Amino acid sequence: MMNPPSSPLNQKPAKAVEAYTASLAFDRRLYRHDIAGSIAQAKALNRAAILTDKEMEIIIMSLVSIREEIERGEFPFREEWEDIHMNIEARLHDKIGEVAGKLHTGRSRNDQVALDMRLYLKEAVGDTLKALRQLQEALITLAEAHPDAVMPGYTHLQRAQPVLLAHHLLAYFEMLERDRERFQDCLRRADVLPLGSSALAGTPYPVDREFLARELGFPRISANSMDAVADRDFVIEYLAAASIAMMHLSRLAEEIVLWSSEEFGFVAVADAYATGSSIMPQKRNPDVAELGRGKAGRVFGHLMALLTTMKGLPLTYNRDLQEDKEALFDAVDTLLSTLGVFAGMVGTLKVNASRMKEATEKGFLLATDLADYLVRKGFPFRQAHGVVASVVRYAMEQGKELGELSLEEYQRFSPLFEADVLSLTVTASLAMRSRPGGTAPEQVRRALAEARRRLEGA
Amino acid sequence: MMNPPSSPLNQKPAKAVEAYTASLAFDRRLYRHDIAGSIAQAKALNRAAILTDKEMEIIIMSLVSIREEIERGEFPFREEWEDIHMNIEARLHDKIGEVAGKLHTGRSRNDQVALDMRLYLKEAVGDTLKALRQLQEALITLAEAHPDAVMPGYTHLQRAQPVLLAHHLLAYFEMLERDRERFQDCLRRADVLPLGSSALAGTPYPVDREFLARELGFPRISANSMDAVADRDFVIEYLAAASIAMMHLSRLAEEIVLWSSEEFGFVAVADAYATGSSIMPQKRNPDVAELGRGKAGRVFGHLMALLTTMKGLPLTYNRDLQEDKEALFDAVDTLLSTLGVFAGMVGTLKVNASRMKEATEKGFLLATDLADYLVRKGFPFRQAHGVVASVVRYAMEQGKELGELSLEEYQRFSPLFEADVLSLTVTASLAMRSRPGGTAPEQVRRALAEARRRLEGA
Amino acid sequence: MMNPPSSPLNQKPAKAVEAYTASLAFDRRLYRHDIAGSIAQAKALNRAAILTDKEMEIIIMSLVSIREEIERGEFPFREEWEDIHMNIEARLHDKIGEVAGKLHTGRSRNDQVALDMRLYLKEAVGDTLKALRQLQEALITLAEAHPDAVMPGYTHLQRAQPVLLAHHLLAYFEMLERDRERFQDCLRRADVLPLGSSALAGTPYPVDREFLARELGFPRISANSMDAVADRDFVIEYLAAASIAMMHLSRLAEEIVLWSSEEFGFVAVADAYATGSSIMPQKRNPDVAELGRGKAGRVFGHLMALLTTMKGLPLTYNRDLQEDKEALFDAVDTLLSTLGVFAGMVGTLKVNASRMKEATEKGFLLATDLADYLVRKGFPFRQAHGVVASVVRYAMEQGKELGELSLEEYQRFSPLFEADVLSLTVTASLAMRSRPGGTAPEQVRRALAEARRRLEGA
Amino acid sequence: MMNPPSSPLNQKPAKAVEAYTASLAFDRRLYRHDIAGSIAQAKALNRAAILTDKEMEIIIMSLVSIREEIERGEFPFREEWEDIHMNIEARLHDKIGEVAGKLHTGRSRNDQVALDMRLYLKEAVGDTLKALRQLQEALITLAEAHPDAVMPGYTHLQRAQPVLLAHHLLAYFEMLERDRERFQDCLRRADVLPLGSSALAGTPYPVDREFLARELGFPRISANSMDAVADRDFVIEYLAAASIAMMHLSRLAEEIVLWSSEEFGFVAVADAYATGSSIMPQKRNPDVAELGRGKAGRVFGHLMALLTTMKGLPLTYNRDLQEDKEALFDAVDTLLSTLGVFAGMVGTLKVNASRMKEATEKGFLLATDLADYLVRKGFPFRQAHGVVASVVRYAMEQGKELGELSLEEYQRFSPLFEADVLSLTVTASLAMRSRPGGTAPEQVRRALAEARRRLEGA
Repeated sequence: MMNPPSSPLNQKPAKAVEAYTASLAFDRRLYRHDIAGSIAQAKALNRAAILTDKEMEIIIMSLVSIREEIERGEFPFREEWEDIHMNIEARLHDKIGEVAGKLHTGRSRNDQVALDMRLYLKEAVGDTLKALRQLQEALITLAEAHPDAVMPGYTHLQRAQPVLLAHHLLAYFEMLERDRERFQDCLRRADVLPLGSSALAGTPYPVDREFLARELGFPRISANSMDAVADRDFVIEYLAAASIAMMHLSRLAEEIVLWSSEEFGFVAVADAYATGSSIMPQKRNPDVAELGRGKAGRVFGHLMALLTTMKGLPLTYNRDLQEDKEALFDAVDTLLSTLGVFAGMVGTLKVNASRMKEATEKGFLLATDLADYLVRKGFPFRQAHGVVASVVRYAMEQGKELGELSLEEYQRFSPLFEADVLSLTVTASLAMRSRPGGTAPEQVRRALAEARRRLEGA
Repeated sequence: MMNPPSSPLNQKPAKAVEAYTASLAFDRRLYRHDIAGSIAQAKALNRAAILTDKEMEIIIMSLVSIREEIERGEFPFREEWEDIHMNIEARLHDKIGEVAGKLHTGRSRNDQVALDMRLYLKEAVGDTLKALRQLQEALITLAEAHPDAVMPGYTHLQRAQPVLLAHHLLAYFEMLERDRERFQDCLRRADVLPLGSSALAGTPYPVDREFLARELGFPRISANSMDAVADRDFVIEYLAAASIAMMHLSRLAEEIVLWSSEEFGFVAVADAYATGSSIMPQKRNPDVAELGRGKAGRVFGHLMALLTTMKGLPLTYNRDLQEDKEALFDAVDTLLSTLGVFAGMVGTLKVNASRMKEATEKGFLLATDLADYLVRKGFPFRQAHGVVASVVRYAMEQGKELGELSLEEYQRFSPLFEADVLSLTVTASLAMRSRPGGTAPEQVRRALAEARRRLEGA
Repeated sequence: MMNPPSSPLNQKPAKAVEAYTASLAFDRRLYRHDIAGSIAQAKALNRAAILTDKEMEIIIMSLVSIREEIERGEFPFREEWEDIHMNIEARLHDKIGEVAGKLHTGRSRNDQVALDMRLYLKEAVGDTLKALRQLQEALITLAEAHPDAVMPGYTHLQRAQPVLLAHHLLAYFEMLERDRERFQDCLRRADVLPLGSSALAGTPYPVDREFLARELGFPRISANSMDAVADRDFVIEYLAAASIAMMHLSRLAEEIVLWSSEEFGFVAVADAYATGSSIMPQKRNPDVAELGRGKAGRVFGHLMALLTTMKGLPLTYNRDLQEDKEALFDAVDTLLSTLGVFAGMVGTLKVNASRMKEATEKGFLLATDLADYLVRKGFPFRQAHGVVASVVRYAMEQGKELGELSLEEYQRFSPLFEADVLSLTVTASLAMRSRPGGTAPEQVRRALAEARRRLEGA
Repeated sequence: MMNPPSSPLNQKPAKAVEAYTASLAFDRRLYRHDIAGSIAQAKALNRAAILTDKEMEIIIMSLVSIREEIERGEFPFREEWEDIHMNIEARLHDKIGEVAGKLHTGRSRNDQVALDMRLYLKEAVGDTLKALRQLQEALITLAEAHPDAVMPGYTHLQRAQPVLLAHHLLAYFEMLERDRERFQDCLRRADVLPLGSSALAGTPYPVDREFLARELGFPRISANSMDAVADRDFVIEYLAAASIAMMHLSRLAEEIVLWSSEEFGFVAVADAYATGSSIMPQKRNPDVAELGRGKAGRVFGHLMALLTTMKGLPLTYNRDLQEDKEALFDAVDTLLSTLGVFAGMVGTLKVNASRMKEATEKGFLLATDLADYLVRKGFPFRQAHGVVASVVRYAMEQGKELGELSLEEYQRFSPLFEADVLSLTVTASLAMRSRPGGTAPEQVRRALAEARRRLEGA
């Protein structure tokens, strides 16, 4: 069996050090990417006349069989080969002997790891885009199922003005749309081949980097070898985009928790997305939403962790960079699983449209419309606002809603109020908001159709 | 004088509450953006027949004169009008009376603030791009001034392989190039007009939002009014991009601190960028670099602050959002000033090329080249690596550098070593790294030219 | 006029560098601490025979008059003396000439700044403890005013079991009690005199550090000069304690926002603590609570900022440490002002006890009591839990609350149900929770008295 | 086999939801704490006459055997029982049938989890204190082994004044001493029994909470049931203390990395704590130090994550709280393992005292002493500082160190310089810093003895 890469060190690492520095437990998920990279490397070394055709073939064949071993669960992982890269290289050596030693020609662990991480990230972004789309799909499907449902729109968690539920849901569609753009931008910057940078100074062998890029599906090669091995921007950028996405999900979660409360009663989470209580038999808790909300902190934490880890590091590679992996892997897992369960939760949400409608009838939601009424009669908005504030104050003292005031009562505050003031309704209020982006039913219908179209193009 | 917007509240806020909720101290920097927004709003209201030509003209004229008052330092800021928006509106009222009250027709503080923040951010991104470019310029100018300077490249802060100083500096050029891309992406997503969203449900007046967008230089309008007033993604995205940029600067700062030390002695910071000591007369401290390094934490903190603030907020606007301003303003100021002083510091850095060169001569920097030598003689890389490790161990024990070993000593370790092994040099080592992205002088020259070209196109 | 401390630098800092490194804008709040430190230093130098009695007296007298100038707003601050320390020292020189130059004997900016920050922190902790106590006072006063108010206790924002409002409020009392302990612990560790550490190696003059400690009110002196100038643990520890306190306040804020909503309707924030809307005349927004909730992020950000700034710094003083000031000052200001306005807001909160009571009547809050009923009849809890879950499911399907079921309906689920099951009430449920820490009225009364007692001892 | 706790939900959770909400993978490490809690609970229920002696005995016996099953690796963990608590309860049911159902009487998952976490934390703090002590031990042992080693003390990474290596190492001793205090304070606040709080309102059974506290080793019981189940301060406080400790370790790591560089050459990390390179045969990288430095970010991230997760949560328990576990467990593991390997690394560090000594001879480290020399001759310090700055500038221009100047050269700058100025030495400089906390050999010897004494008392 092969020895670990020799060095001038006379002694093996202490046991505790081995455990401390080992990454096999978490980096083994990079096995496919590592093997793909090594296959491309073997081809490039062959083109550079460093491997014969025969050597290349046996190396590639053996790498493929190693991948199969791993996938069949038969690969003899060994903790003392501290990472996935060394495990695969050592296994290759076991299988084909000394020729395995040629594969690392002009390559270093530094550019190899950078390559594997980028290949992994590219896949992760693809999965993320798909999962975002799936939740967007669930949101607009729910919106389409309740085209007429009206609810209070809130500011400061106070009822403000009536809106369509579909309009509210489309706000989340927009957030996720921006998330998708951010991940695409992240991907574009990550999609650069670092291989050929070697340890830090560039490979001294005539390896064709453009060929490597084509083989591995990268549109570009890195322009500076020192940057290529020292850079983890692409990981941080994923974490930043994931943090914003999780922030969005935490807002959606908060609303589902609120709306599921007895007090709001706007929606009920399906049984499959709720849980009971170990002590209170009546409970139907929106645990999935809460856990998703809580996990926002987790992803923010990973972002902060890696920014801090990178802060103040001199060039080029430093072992601190090993910390990029667990942070990224956990962020990807967290975001993907949260998006997945949220899509299911949203897709099975039961809407109580009548509770929502009722809620628009209390809380003076048409007060702004009343001010707009005066404006249409020629009053400056600020003054109209003042008059309506007095009307509202009066109604509150009387324990009435606006709709319960008589024309005579209105006229105490302004002679501009006429009989038509009594026909201010939620429906009319909605219909007025008919500029693009507004909650008027026709605009929301158009926005839904546009959302569907964008999604299908995605 | 005008009264504050009336409301059903019977009592004025407590003094401490006024101080707590006021934002005038920091949002006054939005005055230009606020006035630009109001001018566009006045024009749109005129097109919607809500303002007569005359009303529009007097409003615009007065807004322009208010801007001039502010710029001349003659504006009567009043703390009790808690923010810049209210200060300007109240001043307008003082100047032109009731007609001022028409300006807020169909507009809300919510879409107004969102607009001002986006206008501010667009400017801030423009300034940031310029400042990044300026530092890139300083880096490549320094590189061009020392085309032949050679220095140790480091991994783990251990001397690893020789590189060109220019190659090292270009690694930072690449980082800043990605930063510029990130800010451009951020700008693209921020460049959306929120005005017309009103409080949350959309304006009920026939205001032409596309016209507003054109007037204010936005290529797009927001698609959903609730999202438009609840969204601060654009601020967070700036903070994320700024955090990554500050992380890059902290790495550069760390290197300048290291290189300025007696131990390294590679560079000297110009007097104008160093400071003395209150007690130690001999000190010449790289304070600017240190402070820039330290300020990375500050910007990370703002990012974390705003992510946390937004976490779990229900739609739409909540007063928590007011926290976006100080975080963003301070991040912009910090990044711009750091980029500015770093450009000056890099531009005046004195390079001690001979100390750098000497440093490449100690520390076995050609060991990899020695292994590559054996590979070229047909040895697999892994085995060559092992042989060279033994050579290095031997040399260490002898207290010699590789260049001090005799051919006979080499041959004790492998018969493949021949006389030409003695001609391994730093120069030869550099020249070998001639693939794109490598440190070979020809590649670095090409990379420098390409960097210059990209910068000029920017 | 005096020149800045001379150094081997030939050139003054660039203008932009001066602005970048200057701290006068924010460190001027340390003037009292700086002068107190200098007075003690003068006395110690006199005892060490470095200053004559006369010199000491004139220095102290002049420092006192400088303090008065600052407090009268007549001190000629000069930006080019970049910090408060230099401004005061230069002013002293203006007043008394060369003898001013003796004050810095054996002292360095490093131990001077460390001293000033510790003196400031000691005051800040004192203020914080007072402000915490004030909010605790408001909480128990509100609890005492509503000894019998009953409300739903929530888990997962689902109504779970009835509790007393006073019990709920006391939960916050406990959180703040822990906060007070944490600040006291922070103070204990901060209460160490660094003066005499000089730049880093200790003062070479026979200055009596124990005397200095007594003069300045420190119970201990620092044990290691290098640690003393490089340490900012005390700042971070304050930020950590402040972060936890702000987290507590954000939870209280969230509840006040929820409870003020139309849907909950449990409380109304007094007019003085609410704000209106620029567009919606009916709005009464709990802005103070929201802003407090949002500011939690701000303080977390400062904690993260300073941890990051300190990460990886070699000993001893590095200019990065200057970043400690703005973070600490803003955290202190934010925490103190939030505690202050929250005490006012809680103290003026209007409780709608009947809405709270009503809310305990819907949502099966006595389901656990029903299970406990069966347990008292000899049923294992888990099985009783199962039976009650079936009862609840049945009641839900019937659209009934538990209190609306007949005995016969109960008995369909278990023969153990007898007539007394119909007398399960909220009052009885509360009374049962009579172990220490429970919500039974007698326990809550006891807990309130104990809280009051602890507060008075504080 | 037992069914999961019944609830009014008609449907089981979706598969993805089960995976999303499950915590068994990480909370199984709480098995000992959970079983200890259940044994105490069984005893308390027996004292409350809810369990017969026989029932109590069989429950306890079975819980003990379950613990053994787990420790022997024979426990049949089942993923569908989503957490460790349910796994143990279900297993108990398998073993003893319905009587198992009595154990949960008056207890809820909420107080049970709070209990388990506190029991775990108490152990973790104990381990942390031990590990801190171990690293302190390594530091002072290294200091004792090199009592006379002198090195440059640095500010701004510039050589400033000579110090003893032992003095430098003792600075870290002090930091860790504060860390130990912080963990002890954290323990004190965590050491409170939450059991008996039940879901949120307090247990309705006559369970003796003081008895439970004694059984489980808690000196106090929680004072408020709602706080007890909603509180995670103790976890955050551990994370905050761990963050500060990791920050300290990152500074030590940075210095070891610096000192191990070719440029400094002050120490060599033992082979067992260094690693080689996959490509550069000469490399001897201080990976352990780097990784420890990098892991600071990881722990900061956990702190930020949990603060954010808790922000804005209404009382009492919310499922978001489940996020406390992985953050805490990973922080504990990270801190303990880092302390462990750092103790080994420091304990085996090879000090190159002659390189250190040489370094004190270049860089004008005695300039402050030269100023102090003039002060002793009666010159004010500030003026002396100015004179010496001129001397240093002159020496620099001459390419000389201070020790190489002649008396005549000195006297060009001040007539106060006399022959004895030539006898300024590093040794004399050290000896002068003889106040407590200074670097004079006698003080350092005393400080070392005191450190040893404190450690032995610990």
